[in-house]
Amino acid sequence: MPSRLLAVPLTIAIAAAHAAPMPSPTHPSRSPWGPADEIGTLNMMTAQSRQAILARADASRLYDLSVEYFVGMPSWHLLGDPRYQYWLTHSPRGTAVDDPAGVGAAQNAAVAYTGDAISMYTHTGTHIDALNHFGLQGAIWNGYAADEHLGDRGWKRAGVEKFPPIVARGVLIDVAGFKGVPVLPDGYRISAADLQGALRRQRVALQPGDVVLIRGGRMTTWPDVDRYVLQQPGLSLEAARWLAEDRQAMVIGGDNLSLEHFPVEPGHSWVPVHTYLLAQRGVPIVEVVDLEGLARDGLHEFAFVAASLRFRGASAAPFRPIAMPLRPAPGRGASGGGPVP
Amino acid sequence: MPSRLLAVPLTIAIAAAHAAPMPSPTHPSRSPWGPADEIGTLNMMTAQSRQAILARADASRLYDLSVEYFVGMPSWHLLGDPRYQYWLTHSPRGTAVDDPAGVGAAQNAAVAYTGDAISMYTHTGTHIDALNHFGLQGAIWNGYAADEHLGDRGWKRAGVEKFPPIVARGVLIDVAGFKGVPVLPDGYRISAADLQGALRRQRVALQPGDVVLIRGGRMTTWPDVDRYVLQQPGLSLEAARWLAEDRQAMVIGGDNLSLEHFPVEPGHSWVPVHTYLLAQRGVPIVEVVDLEGLARDGLHEFAFVAASLRFRGASAAPFRPIAMPLRPAPGRGASGGGPVP
Amino acid sequence: MPSRLLAVPLTIAIAAAHAAPMPSPTHPSRSPWGPADEIGTLNMMTAQSRQAILARADASRLYDLSVEYFVGMPSWHLLGDPRYQYWLTHSPRGTAVDDPAGVGAAQNAAVAYTGDAISMYTHTGTHIDALNHFGLQGAIWNGYAADEHLGDRGWKRAGVEKFPPIVARGVLIDVAGFKGVPVLPDGYRISAADLQGALRRQRVALQPGDVVLIRGGRMTTWPDVDRYVLQQPGLSLEAARWLAEDRQAMVIGGDNLSLEHFPVEPGHSWVPVHTYLLAQRGVPIVEVVDLEGLARDGLHEFAFVAASLRFRGASAAPFRPIAMPLRPAPGRGASGGGPVP
Amino acid sequence: MPSRLLAVPLTIAIAAAHAAPMPSPTHPSRSPWGPADEIGTLNMMTAQSRQAILARADASRLYDLSVEYFVGMPSWHLLGDPRYQYWLTHSPRGTAVDDPAGVGAAQNAAVAYTGDAISMYTHTGTHIDALNHFGLQGAIWNGYAADEHLGDRGWKRAGVEKFPPIVARGVLIDVAGFKGVPVLPDGYRISAADLQGALRRQRVALQPGDVVLIRGGRMTTWPDVDRYVLQQPGLSLEAARWLAEDRQAMVIGGDNLSLEHFPVEPGHSWVPVHTYLLAQRGVPIVEVVDLEGLARDGLHEFAFVAASLRFRGASAAPFRPIAMPLRPAPGRGASGGGPVP
Repeated sequence: MPSRLLAVPLTIAIAAAHAAPMPSPTHPSRSPWGPADEIGTLNMMTAQSRQAILARADASRLYDLSVEYFVGMPSWHLLGDPRYQYWLTHSPRGTAVDDPAGVGAAQNAAVAYTGDAISMYTHTGTHIDALNHFGLQGAIWNGYAADEHLGDRGWKRAGVEKFPPIVARGVLIDVAGFKGVPVLPDGYRISAADLQGALRRQRVALQPGDVVLIRGGRMTTWPDVDRYVLQQPGLSLEAARWLAEDRQAMVIGGDNLSLEHFPVEPGHSWVPVHTYLLAQRGVPIVEVVDLEGLARDGLHEFAFVAASLRFRGASAAPFRPIAMPLRPAPGRGASGGGPVP
Repeated sequence: MPSRLLAVPLTIAIAAAHAAPMPSPTHPSRSPWGPADEIGTLNMMTAQSRQAILARADASRLYDLSVEYFVGMPSWHLLGDPRYQYWLTHSPRGTAVDDPAGVGAAQNAAVAYTGDAISMYTHTGTHIDALNHFGLQGAIWNGYAADEHLGDRGWKRAGVEKFPPIVARGVLIDVAGFKGVPVLPDGYRISAADLQGALRRQRVALQPGDVVLIRGGRMTTWPDVDRYVLQQPGLSLEAARWLAEDRQAMVIGGDNLSLEHFPVEPGHSWVPVHTYLLAQRGVPIVEVVDLEGLARDGLHEFAFVAASLRFRGASAAPFRPIAMPLRPAPGRGASGGGPVP
Repeated sequence: MPSRLLAVPLTIAIAAAHAAPMPSPTHPSRSPWGPADEIGTLNMMTAQSRQAILARADASRLYDLSVEYFVGMPSWHLLGDPRYQYWLTHSPRGTAVDDPAGVGAAQNAAVAYTGDAISMYTHTGTHIDALNHFGLQGAIWNGYAADEHLGDRGWKRAGVEKFPPIVARGVLIDVAGFKGVPVLPDGYRISAADLQGALRRQRVALQPGDVVLIRGGRMTTWPDVDRYVLQQPGLSLEAARWLAEDRQAMVIGGDNLSLEHFPVEPGHSWVPVHTYLLAQRGVPIVEVVDLEGLARDGLHEFAFVAASLRFRGASAAPFRPIAMPLRPAPGRGASGGGPVP
Repeated sequence: MPSRLLAVPLTIAIAAAHAAPMPSPTHPSRSPWGPADEIGTLNMMTAQSRQAILARADASRLYDLSVEYFVGMPSWHLLGDPRYQYWLTHSPRGTAVDDPAGVGAAQNAAVAYTGDAISMYTHTGTHIDALNHFGLQGAIWNGYAADEHLGDRGWKRAGVEKFPPIVARGVLIDVAGFKGVPVLPDGYRISAADLQGALRRQRVALQPGDVVLIRGGRMTTWPDVDRYVLQQPGLSLEAARWLAEDRQAMVIGGDNLSLEHFPVEPGHSWVPVHTYLLAQRGVPIVEVVDLEGLARDGLHEFAFVAASLRFRGASAAPFRPIAMPLRPAPGRGASGGGPVP
């Protein structure tokens, strides 16, 4: 199975040259928000920032950015993680036979009870990664060590339940649209130049604190498991650095399974963008986002509202983000009209 | 187990007298929104209604109405449904031993991978019930029959994935506050008069299309499993009728496990409020809502924003609703100042 | 997914000609062991038959006929059934962090607790199918109707928990050995003539009440998921009939996933051998049996001892059968030396 | 929850006096069977020992020592471990609606497919504990360290899949019968003297390599969850030492949930018998054994045959042991007639 994931033997891979030296991937970063921080760049969100964006949101047009959950849906399964399962625990006919409440056949027939249960890898469907999802050398963002803080019930620190609801400006970067293709080729590495070109085409500029959502068009292959999961195009480390450092993105997401591309670049770990964003920069990652509606309507800037489930200690949680167009900000012209770098 | 749920033998229970004749519990209602309707009163929500409420929302104050998920949390388990489970599928030390990606010990140590999975009854934690959760005599809201539409993967009709994100006016009815108690007594039946008294005290009037959230104070017993789950106080059928018919509530919820009280009133099925709201009126039910913050701050009217996970065919889905205070509506005075009936 | 399973569209398939008319597949059979029977041909086993075979067993040589359970193992997943999962619920380091028993860090370190859980489709690994696994037109063996006897917790009748431990004569029919191949070709249909030829080569005759285990060599592809699961060679309906009717086999099993071959013969349902054996003849089916050791040693006749887990109401249960060579029966010569038909 | 398990605060408990000094519970033992040993005392079983006992077994009388698995059954849940779950994945009516195989409604109706799945803590129902279940200070029997050998998929060493099928002499020690009670009192500590008294009454002597099964009568409370799980009577450490060291038992089991008594004796860890037998002596433990039939018939000596499922890396596995009476050994008188110490 690993061979489907990793096309080149990593042990013989050669480090790629980079214009700027890479952040040393030997330890996670200490948070600028203090030694108790567990949410990283979500600290950029304030009462004022939330209100500034929500006051401009047009709820009469509402985009649902999530996917459905169903048995057989694509998910990260290459390393043995459980796929989405759904099952009935009560059905109208079943309760009539079982009578679990001891109320008799007539009552069971009368109320026609349906109950059900699900199980899933927490990174299934549209979801957000917590900062504990990947670390470096046994510790995660802000230096929390697994040996000290990871129990059998998950992390005592930086679990996804710590994430607040997100109300922020969202920006779609439609790289597939910029390239003029329905979906980027398998394994394509999205560069900073791709992001910049797409933003220029869209006439939208990023602002610190944005939720940046990158469209490679991969959702057009949904729900074909192999086409969606294997050899995905995605964000390069260099582009991630531009977003996180130059543009100060608060959250970075995409329409693909794992944000970054597979196979990875030579000279890196098998998840260099994850370790960089989560452990080095404290930037939450959002994956499996349906950006097709936004792209179709050319809506590149919007209010992003999402509240992830509070799974205690977990490395991710599903949510159902919504996007709403923005009305012009008071005292200025069309939104996002400034030049992009 | 049933004996803990149902204090009186239902088979010998005597029908209670009601001022008005009960809706006949022999078949579900046909939807006024047409033969294809699967979402019931959520049809009351429109582009205009969403925008009318969101335009007044103050996102600088944001209330999280959800509970955390953790192993051992209270949930509906009396009829054998699975409790919330969480487990690690990848840990920093475990991947170093297993090497599931075949990348070698050094790489596994470098990236410190944590992955995890969960399983749960869909009605666990803060959640919304779909209209297929309870029916009558083998069919659900709008007449969809289980024999025709219920597969092993859930309902082909009226699954929770059909519910849109909800943006609506929310109203807290603080019955515990009205009664001057931290929590209503075990098994207490909340009457329409209780609701009316609490609204009068709060000086808030209900409007058609509201998300009505009833506080009995049960969340103060959280997370004590027995105290939260057993013998809960809750909404009476008579009060549910007042909300659904007289006040045209769009969604009805509460801070307890099952909205309605247990044990039930004599002369009814074991879930009369559920069958009435879901199958007879098409009103979605919301449960396990944390209303303590709203009650503490006396915030009885707010923008309610929530988007439930799209579990295909399911009878419920978790979500994390948020509440935001309302600024005064343009062209009128303080909100909700009218007299209550 | 179905296309990988079923190579020909069944709706346009044409019925194959058979020398003898097929049993009408329109309803399950009534048991000759009476209206309360739930175990079918296992009724052939008696105190005497058990003792007759065990008295000849040589426990000094013991063959384990089972496979291991592990994450990623082949299993029947084509229709969405859950694959085997294993996870830790307690680990030495995890309990030290979590302290679930409230005994403190020193105690947790002292006792180094490991606990774990599993989940699986009941037909995973070496297992036996109960008679409720497949029926005909809504009823199973002996006429038990699903509407009356199938609850959400499984069947009230003919669940696998009704099966007694099995102590019987086992016979290996090594068809791959007879054909001189390591494994039969994909989709190969094992005929009665193949069985007869193999038996003749082995110089073993079947007797009523035998546990018949057919080796197509498929276990040599284990644990390659696709090679083991897809397009499997297996027992034809005609050969199943010969075993069940002419030879009065008590149990029929194989080293492949589903006993019968896929794709199926034209003119039949997608599981004609299952419905025939389970619903028409009351013959339990055993699958995923490791017969390599027996074949390698030429051990074609043995004592078969197996006790399946008692999953109440279930359609299958795993077990770990063992085989032991037979010493000569008192008062007769070498075992199984008679002529085969 | 822990308070229901542990009646005395362990941190203030005072060490009990023992006639002989306790084995130091600071590290697991090295195996006398060599540095690669993973099965401990099961090495005592040989081809000869198996055959010696099986040759005397009377299969015409067969005792099933296992319990059924069903939703709601008692299991070890006090520390959050998942209880047994069962669910349908395919049902006759459900497949007719879902048509997962794409064969159409007529075919689905024709074959009446039932499939199901289960999940459970591995120590649920009648089961055997592997030697990795409890260790001491981060390592298990024979010194295997968790940091080196415990992955997210279980132990690389001493997993339960390493256990061979067991064919051995079994001895029932009916302590409840000896005491003249249906079930020992809650928390009762079974002493070595109790075992010796019961054996004397039974006129059976233990032999090295026996599977020793101790009956406290707890199965008479099955399946009452609280009565079976809480405050169980069980084996004392002193009695365990007598069995393991003086009598050289190969396997030790009981009819209760955890073999040993709860609450534990002062001065010990919360599972002193487990760490002693598994980590110090390499003796597998068997639990939740139904000994009522044997006790009722006064069958105290028997052939014990059991084969546990091969869950790779796991700390336990279920099985369904059978017991068969013994015919007299060739060349000696009635079995087990010697004096007991």
